[in-house]
Amino acid sequence: MKELEQRILKDGDILGGDILKVDSFLNHQLDITLLKHIGEAFYEKFKDDKVTKIVTIEASGIAIACFAALKFNVPVVFAKKAQSHNLGNEVYTSKVHSYTYDRDYDITVSRKYLSEDDTIVIIDDFMANGLATEGLLDIAKQAGAKVAGIGICIEKGFQPGGRRLRDKGYKLVSLAIVDEMKEGEIRFRELD
Amino acid sequence: MKELEQRILKDGDILGGDILKVDSFLNHQLDITLLKHIGEAFYEKFKDDKVTKIVTIEASGIAIACFAALKFNVPVVFAKKAQSHNLGNEVYTSKVHSYTYDRDYDITVSRKYLSEDDTIVIIDDFMANGLATEGLLDIAKQAGAKVAGIGICIEKGFQPGGRRLRDKGYKLVSLAIVDEMKEGEIRFRELD
Repeated sequence: MKELEQRILKDGDILGGDILKVDSFLNHQLDITLLKHIGEAFYEKFKDDKVTKIVTIEASGIAIACFAALKFNVPVVFAKKAQSHNLGNEVYTSKVHSYTYDRDYDITVSRKYLSEDDTIVIIDDFMANGLATEGLLDIAKQAGAKVAGIGICIEKGFQPGGRRLRDKGYKLVSLAIVDEMKEGEIRFRELD
Repeated sequence: MKELEQRILKDGDILGGDILKVDSFLNHQLDITLLKHIGEAFYEKFKDDKVTKIVTIEASGIAIACFAALKFNVPVVFAKKAQSHNLGNEVYTSKVHSYTYDRDYDITVSRKYLSEDDTIVIIDDFMANGLATEGLLDIAKQAGAKVAGIGICIEKGFQPGGRRLRDKGYKLVSLAIVDEMKEGEIRFRELD
């Protein structure tokens, strides 16, 4: 998605070796016009898949999931991090390791909101090692839900998550794939 | 907002004394059509206030803030809970006490995304004691930003947050105010 790539080049910040900060438009301050276009781009890729729900993880996936859901006209279900006091015990749970924070955390989804009747698209802002997505795939499997595919705004192509999921046969749509970040320069993978 | 009140009566669950669960449509699974209408309702109340940004707190405020921002055509800024490794030190910070989880946490907003040039509406899903909102007001004050008002989906009118903020002179718009929850019955305050 050229608009996203250009925005990353204009407003993204490279920190240290492999941290790409996009918090001016994607995950702290949110550019609503860009998010609308991102939602439309995901819709184009999955519109024939009879999608019933968009699934993501709090917090930074929620906005993106909402704008996709707006096009699909289906609900969003966002997984919660850590056991919430108010969720009740009727939840699917999966354990996720975060490299950013170097710790494990649980994600939970109420059994009421995901079932074998659902066909979902998993949406998130970033994919690096892909472990958050694997956690959502695990929950979808527990629910018996069909996974139409995975929509990611920015994939770090130099980390293994994307390749592993494609090797497993998932339809993974990344709107921008960063293959290299070196000396402040970002190189994107050519996309169809 | 009659649509929200009716949805609470239809799908809300009362747990224990004063917990109202609305996670089937507002803060776990998200009903996108309802959220659009909620965003439009907030827009009607603040559309003449030259709003430049919608401000909320992760996670359950984000979706609602996005649908308000869609109508205002301005960015969302969502405060993060706890110091994030990637935010940098250039942040406004305020301490918030959560009664739900019985602990204090910090909320942070990057200084880059809120300034004296901004006029904001603070949006959230719930107000009970109002401490999360007070934290955002504290951050707005640090930034020198003007606060046009506060938009809340569900206010618990039997808890002190709403009254305290109105007494301080804030324009607080709650789309549904629950004045009593007793034996499974919910009584709403009459709204204009």
